[in-house]
Amino acid sequence: MIGAVDVIVAKRDGHRLTDAQIDWVVAAHTRGEVADEQMAALAMAILLNGMDAAETARWTLAMIESGERLALPDVGRPLVDKHSTGGVGDKITLVLAPLAAACGLAVPQLSGRGLGHTGGTLDKLEAIPGWRAELSADEIAAQLVEVGAVVCATTPTLAPADRRLYALRDVTGTVPSVPLIASSIMSKKIAGGARGLVLDVKVGSGAFMPTPAAARELATRMVEIGALHDLPTRAVLTDMSVPLGRTAGNALEVAEAVEVLRGGGPADVRELTLALAREMLDLAGLAADPAALLDSGVAHGVWERMIAAQGGDPTAPLPVASSVTTVEAEASGFFRPDALAVGTAAWRLGAGRARKEDGVQAAAGVRLLHDVGTSVRAGEPLLELHTDTPEALDGARSALAAAPMVSSEPFPGRDLVLESVGSPSSEP
Amino acid sequence: MIGAVDVIVAKRDGHRLTDAQIDWVVAAHTRGEVADEQMAALAMAILLNGMDAAETARWTLAMIESGERLALPDVGRPLVDKHSTGGVGDKITLVLAPLAAACGLAVPQLSGRGLGHTGGTLDKLEAIPGWRAELSADEIAAQLVEVGAVVCATTPTLAPADRRLYALRDVTGTVPSVPLIASSIMSKKIAGGARGLVLDVKVGSGAFMPTPAAARELATRMVEIGALHDLPTRAVLTDMSVPLGRTAGNALEVAEAVEVLRGGGPADVRELTLALAREMLDLAGLAADPAALLDSGVAHGVWERMIAAQGGDPTAPLPVASSVTTVEAEASGFFRPDALAVGTAAWRLGAGRARKEDGVQAAAGVRLLHDVGTSVRAGEPLLELHTDTPEALDGARSALAAAPMVSSEPFPGRDLVLESVGSPSSEP
Repeated sequence: MIGAVDVIVAKRDGHRLTDAQIDWVVAAHTRGEVADEQMAALAMAILLNGMDAAETARWTLAMIESGERLALPDVGRPLVDKHSTGGVGDKITLVLAPLAAACGLAVPQLSGRGLGHTGGTLDKLEAIPGWRAELSADEIAAQLVEVGAVVCATTPTLAPADRRLYALRDVTGTVPSVPLIASSIMSKKIAGGARGLVLDVKVGSGAFMPTPAAARELATRMVEIGALHDLPTRAVLTDMSVPLGRTAGNALEVAEAVEVLRGGGPADVRELTLALAREMLDLAGLAADPAALLDSGVAHGVWERMIAAQGGDPTAPLPVASSVTTVEAEASGFFRPDALAVGTAAWRLGAGRARKEDGVQAAAGVRLLHDVGTSVRAGEPLLELHTDTPEALDGARSALAAAPMVSSEPFPGRDLVLESVGSPSSEP
Repeated sequence: MIGAVDVIVAKRDGHRLTDAQIDWVVAAHTRGEVADEQMAALAMAILLNGMDAAETARWTLAMIESGERLALPDVGRPLVDKHSTGGVGDKITLVLAPLAAACGLAVPQLSGRGLGHTGGTLDKLEAIPGWRAELSADEIAAQLVEVGAVVCATTPTLAPADRRLYALRDVTGTVPSVPLIASSIMSKKIAGGARGLVLDVKVGSGAFMPTPAAARELATRMVEIGALHDLPTRAVLTDMSVPLGRTAGNALEVAEAVEVLRGGGPADVRELTLALAREMLDLAGLAADPAALLDSGVAHGVWERMIAAQGGDPTAPLPVASSVTTVEAEASGFFRPDALAVGTAAWRLGAGRARKEDGVQAAAGVRLLHDVGTSVRAGEPLLELHTDTPEALDGARSALAAAPMVSSEPFPGRDLVLESVGSPSSEP
């Protein structure tokens, strides 16, 4: 008979967990037989002593088996999903899902809400009047056939073990564990029914993985788990040292995504979206020219149908903040805002939530007034702070003060895609 | 403002906790504001990443401050306490408390109940018909004046933070942490009002600290904490590789303790009791001859008054088990029972409890039929197993089978007292 203390002690003392121990502890915690304090101690022991590839794959399987798998019907197109580990100004999904559908893929993206300084895709889309995140399995399938792209809330029956464990990790300082992050993401993606998966693993101050080594380990672990579960998976490591695009915040990011869908918008958002679209197409063996589908407006047409199918009005004006103030440069030099500082400022202005049960402000956020690397003069406005709660401005300004926004060194440019893991071209 | 996750993350990442963080997290957990799952994650991070001497001293202070201090009046004698970290067959307190009182000390020993393979002093004394463990602060003070020795249950107002944390550590695999053990013991002893303290830190298979290095670290940490709180403290490291005396179990141990109080009994129990009594006397600056007070029956007289003062009948027959069976030698050689194996067998026979809320059998336990080191022949009885629940015999036998009871090597003898920490003679 397996007991919770035996499992905790094994990991505490640096041993591998057996398949039977993993299956039991994940299922028993989901049933409430293993107490939250026991799972918290185990999570800390896993964070500090690690789990190897085989343990992580088994942990993922146990979380999948805690619930149902979404049985998506044959929709007549390759089902390819995408996931980002979260960054500041990361509105890529808003452009990529309709673009990939325009290219002939079907994209079933079940998403979560944001927590902390990284925004959540559902929070962004909810800035659009009328749009709703919750869909039934039948509605997801029908929309995949009719539109080709769905971005909606994950259903409660997918990997309930992960839901319970994630809430616990969030309050116990046990979020940044590679095996726990990898199994959390992959259990939901595998249960979600995709047949291919492209992962955008962010690296840098605004990401959960601050170093390329940690991001590479996470990417490798997730690609391995995908292979073990017959889900072809590729990962790209991408830069998150400065924000993506020029906005962080819900309605601000939707507006910027729409610019990119119309063939314009910031170059970095367009470039990363195209790189990820090409990975998805390559994974599915489809040939298409995503840049042309952006420039021609075809992708924007899919966007409008995708939003309308979920009750949203893609032509309605987006919410505007009641207070907009600027932040000026303290010195002359080259504009180089830190991703974490900007993300934290947007969060404090009301774009994000500190606790799961909090709401978010649709209009709150930060707008960069220059491209990264631009030469600026002392006193010149650098950023706009948008909020409906002006009492939050002091907190946002002090978050921005944590890192200099102007550098005396010219910006050397940015390699958006740092490396790939799992694609044929990344093999040695 | 301090938050639970900040404190957890600091220790997770290997940093020192500040005084403010320690004060807050201990108090907030006691108030229920820090959740058990958060304290469990912190306890695991402390176990794996450690706390230094200053952190441990502050943690101890925070646990003391969570409750009241027992204000013992001047009883006209030096108040010196003793604590053992727990071993198999460790009935030393039963002899030592009345002996030290016979020597002119006052011994206020507030004790806990046993958990796992080590017996609890209160469980042993409760084998005596009528004896009660719960005393009020006034009763404790009166008995110290009249008898000179009290062994009773710790009161709920002493270090309530420790009570809550210990229950949590017990179910989360976080018991064997030197700083958490040291602060748990010392917070209760300092709050308990003693003016001097002698610690018996057990080393070996039957102890919580299996190696001399770990036991020395624990002893050193506790002596340091005592010094910081004006409680003169000494520690002796003593052997727990084989059981103390020839009995493990509640009534069996009481009977053996009474033999020693009458000047007889096993040599090791007598020797260790005298060594600890001499440390207590030296700490208080008293001169007395404890061996003479055992041999003359004076200590036994104090024992009878001590038991009677708490409602017990020292002359009443002790409970006897309904089932007594023997275990025979599988081979010829030298008798060398392993402390952990004997302790676990006694526990499974009913002498100990697996969970706090379980009861214990007064009569259950193990009796060794030979002194350790005796030459025995294959087939000769080695042990008696006593229980009122014969269905427990299989579990007890399999616990004993975990370690050979007969060695082909002669027993080299046993240094009961391995070293001292904190006494003037142990200074370099």
